[in-house]
Amino acid sequence: MRFLTFEDNGQPVPAIVRGDSAVDLRALDPDLPRDWATLLARDNLERLATLAEAAPDHALRPLAGLRYLPPIPAPPKTLCVGLNYRAHAAETGMDLPRYPIFFTRFPTSFVGHQRAMVCPSVSEKYDYEGELVAVIGRGGRSIPRERALDHVVGYSIFNDGSVRDFQKRAKQWTLGKNFDASGAFGPHVVTADELPEGASGLGVETRLNGEVMQSGRTDDLIFTVADLVAAAGEAMTLEPGSILVTGTPPGVGMARDPYVWMKAGDTVSITIEGIGTLTNPVVAEG
Amino acid sequence: MRFLTFEDNGQPVPAIVRGDSAVDLRALDPDLPRDWATLLARDNLERLATLAEAAPDHALRPLAGLRYLPPIPAPPKTLCVGLNYRAHAAETGMDLPRYPIFFTRFPTSFVGHQRAMVCPSVSEKYDYEGELVAVIGRGGRSIPRERALDHVVGYSIFNDGSVRDFQKRAKQWTLGKNFDASGAFGPHVVTADELPEGASGLGVETRLNGEVMQSGRTDDLIFTVADLVAAAGEAMTLEPGSILVTGTPPGVGMARDPYVWMKAGDTVSITIEGIGTLTNPVVAEG
Repeated sequence: MRFLTFEDNGQPVPAIVRGDSAVDLRALDPDLPRDWATLLARDNLERLATLAEAAPDHALRPLAGLRYLPPIPAPPKTLCVGLNYRAHAAETGMDLPRYPIFFTRFPTSFVGHQRAMVCPSVSEKYDYEGELVAVIGRGGRSIPRERALDHVVGYSIFNDGSVRDFQKRAKQWTLGKNFDASGAFGPHVVTADELPEGASGLGVETRLNGEVMQSGRTDDLIFTVADLVAAAGEAMTLEPGSILVTGTPPGVGMARDPYVWMKAGDTVSITIEGIGTLTNPVVAEG
Repeated sequence: MRFLTFEDNGQPVPAIVRGDSAVDLRALDPDLPRDWATLLARDNLERLATLAEAAPDHALRPLAGLRYLPPIPAPPKTLCVGLNYRAHAAETGMDLPRYPIFFTRFPTSFVGHQRAMVCPSVSEKYDYEGELVAVIGRGGRSIPRERALDHVVGYSIFNDGSVRDFQKRAKQWTLGKNFDASGAFGPHVVTADELPEGASGLGVETRLNGEVMQSGRTDDLIFTVADLVAAAGEAMTLEPGSILVTGTPPGVGMARDPYVWMKAGDTVSITIEGIGTLTNPVVAEG
C-alpha cells in the first residue's frame, strides 16, 4: 500500500494510491482525521486499505494532476542522520562514526514531490542529498533493536538539501539544514510489507538534470533502520508520523571536483528501488 | 503583562496573570484559540490584556494551585544556542564562536514550571543550564538586526537540561538535548515592554538544592537577542510562538571539579531578574 497527502483548496488531504489515482480519504469517511500522523496513531491501515479498494469513482483523483504535499506534512519529529553510508563517510574524509549522528529539520524546510525547492539567495553552496526515509507507525520509547522494525510503518524518499557554508560555519548543522523549502519529502510512503526487511538492499540514485550524481545501496548503511530507531528511542519518544531520514550515499556536490551546486532551473530526482522517484525543480528565492 | 498556559482536565488553557491569579481566557471568549502560538498569530495582546483586566471572578484561578505547562507547549520552532556567554565559553575551553551555534529541542524534551524533570536511567551525566528565552510574536524571514526586536513579544526562562555523554558522543548534540522531559520552560512569558531593550543586563542565576551554581548577566551574551533573531531568520521563517533559547552562563555541572550532576530528589531553580523563577523537582525515570 502507498499513501500520500495532497493539497486541495489550501488544505491537506490524506489519500491512498490505487492504480493511477489517489483515493481521497475525506470522500470515504468525513470523520477521518486530515493528517497521516493522526491516522497512523488512531486507525489501522488494513481498514483504510479496504475502504480505498471499495472507493467509488467520485473519491478518485488522477495522480498526474495532484499538488503533492509531503506524505506527512509536519512530522512530530524529523530526525536526520549524518555520515551513514560507508562510501559517503569515505568521500568526506571523515572517520566512520561510532554512534549515529542525529540532526533535525523543521517541517518548513521541506516540500512535497514536484514542488519547488528554493535555492537560497545568501549562498551558492546548495547541495542535494538523496535519502531513504523510515516512517514511524507505532510510537514508543526505549525500543529494543530486535523489535525496532515493528514500529516502522513504511518507507519514503527525502532530498536533504543542504546549504553547505551555513551548515559548516558553526559546530552544529542546524542552519544549513533548515533553509525554508530547501529539501523535499515524498512522493508517497510505501508500507513495509512491500519491501525487504528494514528496506535493506535497495538501490538509491540521485540525478541532477538527468545525470546520475549519487548511486548507492541501502545495505551500505553504517547504522540500519533498526539501529536508528533503537538509538533515537533510547533518548526520546518516537510518535506515529515521526520520520528518520537515514543518510546519503556518495556523490554529493561538495565532495566533487569541481564542486557541483544546485541552481535555479535545475531538476533533481531521487529514485529508490521499490519506492519510487521524488522529483523537484529548483527555483531562485524571492 | 505576563502570560502562561496551564493544564485543566488534560487540556492546555491559555491564561494571563493578574495579581496572584491566572485569568482563564476560555472563560472570557470561548472562540479564542487554545494555544498562545495561535493567539499571538491571530489576536493582539492589548485586546487580551483589556479582557483580562475586566475578567469576572469565575475566570480567575489562583496561581498557587495551577498545573503549569510550558507557556507555549509546542513552539513551532525551538532554537537553542550553544556557547553564547563569554564566561561559559571560557569555562568549556572553547574559542568564542564567530557565528551562533544553533541546535534544536523537540517539545517532548521540556516540561512546565513545577513539573518533574526526568533524570535518564541510561546516563548519570544530567546537567542543568539556566537560560533566557526570547519568544517570537510577529513572524518573519530575512529579518534585519535593526528590526529584529520588533518580532520579539516577550521573554521567559528555560532549563536546557543536557545529558552530557549523549550530547558529546556524536558530532551533533541532538540526542543529549532531547531526552523526554529533560528540560523546562516557564513559568510565564513577560512581555518585552516590561524589560530593558533586548532583555539585556538581567541577572541569571541557577540554584541546585538552594545552592547557587550559575550566575551571569545577559549583557555577557556574545550574540544578543537581536543578533540571534537575525541569524536564524536568515535561513528560516520564524513563526509566532517560536522560541530562541539564548545560551547559558558559566557554572554548569560539567565544568565543575568535581562534576555536579542532577539526580532524583534534587530541586533546580532558575531566576532571571524581572522575569521570575522557574523551579522543577528532578525525578528518576520510569
